Amino acid sequence: MQTKTLKIIPLGGLGEFGMNCLAIRWEDDILVIDAGLMFPETELLGVDVVVPDISYLVENKAHVRGILLTHGHEDHIGGLPWVLQELKVPVYGTEFTLAYVEGKLEEHKMLDEIDLIEIQPKKKFTIGPFTIEPIRVTHSLVDCVALAIDTPVGVIIHTGDFKIDLSPPDGKPFDLHTFAEYGKRGVLALLQDSTNVERHGYTPSEWAVKPRLDELFSRTQKKLFFSCFSSSIYRIRIALELARTHGRKVAVIGRSMNESTEIAQDLGYLDIPPGLIINPGQLRDFPPEKLMLLISGTQGEPMSALSRAAVDTHKHAKIEPGDTVILSSRIIPGNEKSIFRVIDHLYRRDANVICDDGSSGLIHVSGHGSREEMRLLINLVRPEYFIPVHGDYRYLRQHAQVAEETGAIGGAIVIEDGDVLEVNQQQARKNGKVTAGRVLIDSGSTIDVVEDLVIKDRRTLSEDGIVLAVLALNKKSGLVERLPEVVMRGFGGSDITEPAREVVMRCLDSLSPEEKADYGVVKEKVRVELKRFIQKSTGRRPMIMPVVMEI
Amino acid sequence: MQTKTLKIIPLGGLGEFGMNCLAIRWEDDILVIDAGLMFPETELLGVDVVVPDISYLVENKAHVRGILLTHGHEDHIGGLPWVLQELKVPVYGTEFTLAYVEGKLEEHKMLDEIDLIEIQPKKKFTIGPFTIEPIRVTHSLVDCVALAIDTPVGVIIHTGDFKIDLSPPDGKPFDLHTFAEYGKRGVLALLQDSTNVERHGYTPSEWAVKPRLDELFSRTQKKLFFSCFSSSIYRIRIALELARTHGRKVAVIGRSMNESTEIAQDLGYLDIPPGLIINPGQLRDFPPEKLMLLISGTQGEPMSALSRAAVDTHKHAKIEPGDTVILSSRIIPGNEKSIFRVIDHLYRRDANVICDDGSSGLIHVSGHGSREEMRLLINLVRPEYFIPVHGDYRYLRQHAQVAEETGAIGGAIVIEDGDVLEVNQQQARKNGKVTAGRVLIDSGSTIDVVEDLVIKDRRTLSEDGIVLAVLALNKKSGLVERLPEVVMRGFGGSDITEPAREVVMRCLDSLSPEEKADYGVVKEKVRVELKRFIQKSTGRRPMIMPVVMEI
Repeated sequence: MQTKTLKIIPLGGLGEFGMNCLAIRWEDDILVIDAGLMFPETELLGVDVVVPDISYLVENKAHVRGILLTHGHEDHIGGLPWVLQELKVPVYGTEFTLAYVEGKLEEHKMLDEIDLIEIQPKKKFTIGPFTIEPIRVTHSLVDCVALAIDTPVGVIIHTGDFKIDLSPPDGKPFDLHTFAEYGKRGVLALLQDSTNVERHGYTPSEWAVKPRLDELFSRTQKKLFFSCFSSSIYRIRIALELARTHGRKVAVIGRSMNESTEIAQDLGYLDIPPGLIINPGQLRDFPPEKLMLLISGTQGEPMSALSRAAVDTHKHAKIEPGDTVILSSRIIPGNEKSIFRVIDHLYRRDANVICDDGSSGLIHVSGHGSREEMRLLINLVRPEYFIPVHGDYRYLRQHAQVAEETGAIGGAIVIEDGDVLEVNQQQARKNGKVTAGRVLIDSGSTIDVVEDLVIKDRRTLSEDGIVLAVLALNKKSGLVERLPEVVMRGFGGSDITEPAREVVMRCLDSLSPEEKADYGVVKEKVRVELKRFIQKSTGRRPMIMPVVMEI
Repeated sequence: MQTKTLKIIPLGGLGEFGMNCLAIRWEDDILVIDAGLMFPETELLGVDVVVPDISYLVENKAHVRGILLTHGHEDHIGGLPWVLQELKVPVYGTEFTLAYVEGKLEEHKMLDEIDLIEIQPKKKFTIGPFTIEPIRVTHSLVDCVALAIDTPVGVIIHTGDFKIDLSPPDGKPFDLHTFAEYGKRGVLALLQDSTNVERHGYTPSEWAVKPRLDELFSRTQKKLFFSCFSSSIYRIRIALELARTHGRKVAVIGRSMNESTEIAQDLGYLDIPPGLIINPGQLRDFPPEKLMLLISGTQGEPMSALSRAAVDTHKHAKIEPGDTVILSSRIIPGNEKSIFRVIDHLYRRDANVICDDGSSGLIHVSGHGSREEMRLLINLVRPEYFIPVHGDYRYLRQHAQVAEETGAIGGAIVIEDGDVLEVNQQQARKNGKVTAGRVLIDSGSTIDVVEDLVIKDRRTLSEDGIVLAVLALNKKSGLVERLPEVVMRGFGGSDITEPAREVVMRCLDSLSPEEKADYGVVKEKVRVELKRFIQKSTGRRPMIMPVVMEI
């Protein structure tokens, strides 16, 4: 009888959405799958991103053999700069995924230190006791893989994020055959994406948005603003094709959109004919009906290009009456208010706004499979143990039930971040806990220009002191109702409270009335200005929390 | 030719959701329709409610003849205690609406000062130059009316909130005939609810939820928790009927739920057989399958009964494995995170959670009409001018378009809070602006027991000083990571910072780990404790802003 076990230890993303990270351990060898981030709740003032607590990996540094990436979304790779500061291990990913990672590491000046190793679907490779085969899956992003990991106790498969798109725009289909073969030979455990478990039926193909978008392009008389997630390469591809068909030149607006389209073009995922793309500065040279602006900011992020265009503070992207704005994306829960604020501004500028409200025809599809796709994959793989990954606790529980209803699994086990699941051919059982949790990160500036490449966690930052800036604003009049209060704690040396208050005051004065009415913008600008000032005058990087007090 | 005009002046709810308030003025006579509140964004720390700025009414105090209420929802009556502090004018409403108002005024010790005048559908009454006829409409609440107001330049109709429910559970139908008669005789302006303008088709009747709820009652083996808005009298009626049919005793849990069911019972909207309702203390005397708990807290409000049950800190409402929790309500945008947090807690207690996610069958219907109902009413009323009310700017614009597409109106006009619309039989035009905006209110405690009946606006409060409490928490460990910082500004006299820190520390110590992980609870409890302490030791009521710093 087997006594040794494989350990499966989720460190992020199980019991919450985002910051996916999971460790697999056999004796003294640890593999890590993904290292994502999540964005903070609005309640966490002065935090840019949240990453998983990787104390467990740091304590077992000597045993960590590498990080395997399933795809290039932020909730799977965004934590890398943080994790790699602690663990200098090789990173494995597909070509496209690594292109995103390269940009990220370059930004953090870490590119030279880290070994990036390209993997390809169907090309097996070995790390210690593990043999890994990437399997092509489809998703909203390109070049995504599931991972089949052959271990001494059997094969485990981690799906990454997936949908089963039977007509992906790049013609690279979901590899049903390989999953089926593994299923035939026997799979010990399947770790499957739970994101859309509350959706019944099947998720439509990425192609499904084209007819409705085509119709919108036909109907638009003036400029067309097309906004989607910058990583939605398929969506961008469709938008560019439509622009060409309808005789519109394309200006790409926003840093993330520019980076993403460049990478996709370099790697052959976008085939852009010469002359289609123009510089933002050339926008004035064409009549409005000959223009499309591919613009970032679907989530109402206060500093994004679309938000700025909506309040008319963007240099190039000007919204005029009769222009059409298509938001080809979903609303990420928590972002409703920001998004609706942007849409209201667009309406005030007399733009036609088309968003995914269920009544506008299909202009967005999810990148995650619905219940029937989950069941289909379970039927192909027929694992002994089924382990739901990615999602709030209730999603994991529902997914376990969905899996059990197929009758195709041995059993389903719900584990959460920090749980240690021990599994071999005889049994699977939870056995103990490791440290898991969230680390709050201040990554410098979230404003488009990256100025400050340090990343520090909040605990360290708080040792550098705390700065609270209390801003008393009158929303109606746009006036600053009293001098800003700046409260500093944990600072030695000379008192810089007064000059800091002036910095805040000047910053507030520089905002337009529409910007002042958007507290997201106000807080972000004040934070950046104060940070710059304090760093310059004291060399310290305290935690800065702007508090808006509307009176 | 007419030269005098009627003025229509929205003061709240046009260009935002909530705090509905609109003034109608003929020469020196002003009528006010509704006086609602809205709940603050999470960004507005330390604010309980937001009400409209009524400077215009205060400046014209001598001319305000009364406040007419369309129905008893908070976004239509919640601002009354505030407005009536400034204007001691009569309040007109239906029996049920006034019952809610009475409770509210009693709480604020204002009941004796204010004249409450009951109105009834089809019973005309006159105020100055206006003759008003209430018209029965259907909605999620009972005893709701539209108002037809005969003015010297013609009739204007304000719909209040409505749907066209052709089978309302109380058998009191939407009065299509009276609308039709007005339409035949000629209507100058129709002011119509825009809430559901993004929904196509018709909204289902309140009855439509019964079959699915019946099925859920049949299937539930253990305790059944039924949660809905406490003002959803129809829903409560259906739940009580089902409890009786399925042999379950009912305990009513939560202050608002208790008040609301009592009022509805007194006024004959709930017919509760003797013995159906038990005291919460009797819950232990019955087996779980014989119990239903009618419980408030569908929006994940941190201090609500359901939230407390979910983290097992409620005295009577205990969630046990196999219990079913039905959330028969919608998610109000902005509340997603709080609601999902509660649902996750419920899953962790192994409860079955049924919510309105589109896949569970119909367990909730909206109280607002969809596009076809909007069009139906417009076709009946055929107004010269159509004025959309209630909603964000984009809703008003869309509603104007929906109205124009009917071909049944003279023209649609979009106005926003503060706009002055002048209208007579020749024309309608915007002419100038009055002061409008938001006033942030601190109404004492939002914790169940009402301790503090003063209401003060934030501007006044800030003259009493500001207190910031910075709480450094470790979400993972639940530990308080450093002593809380308390920063006070605008306080004369002795320094009470140290004892205030101890108050905060003691308060944090008293919280359970699950409560500590819920920053909403943490902030609210700290705020209440600090307020109590400061008021006792200084007699002042400063603005208190708890800031959670997770490290």
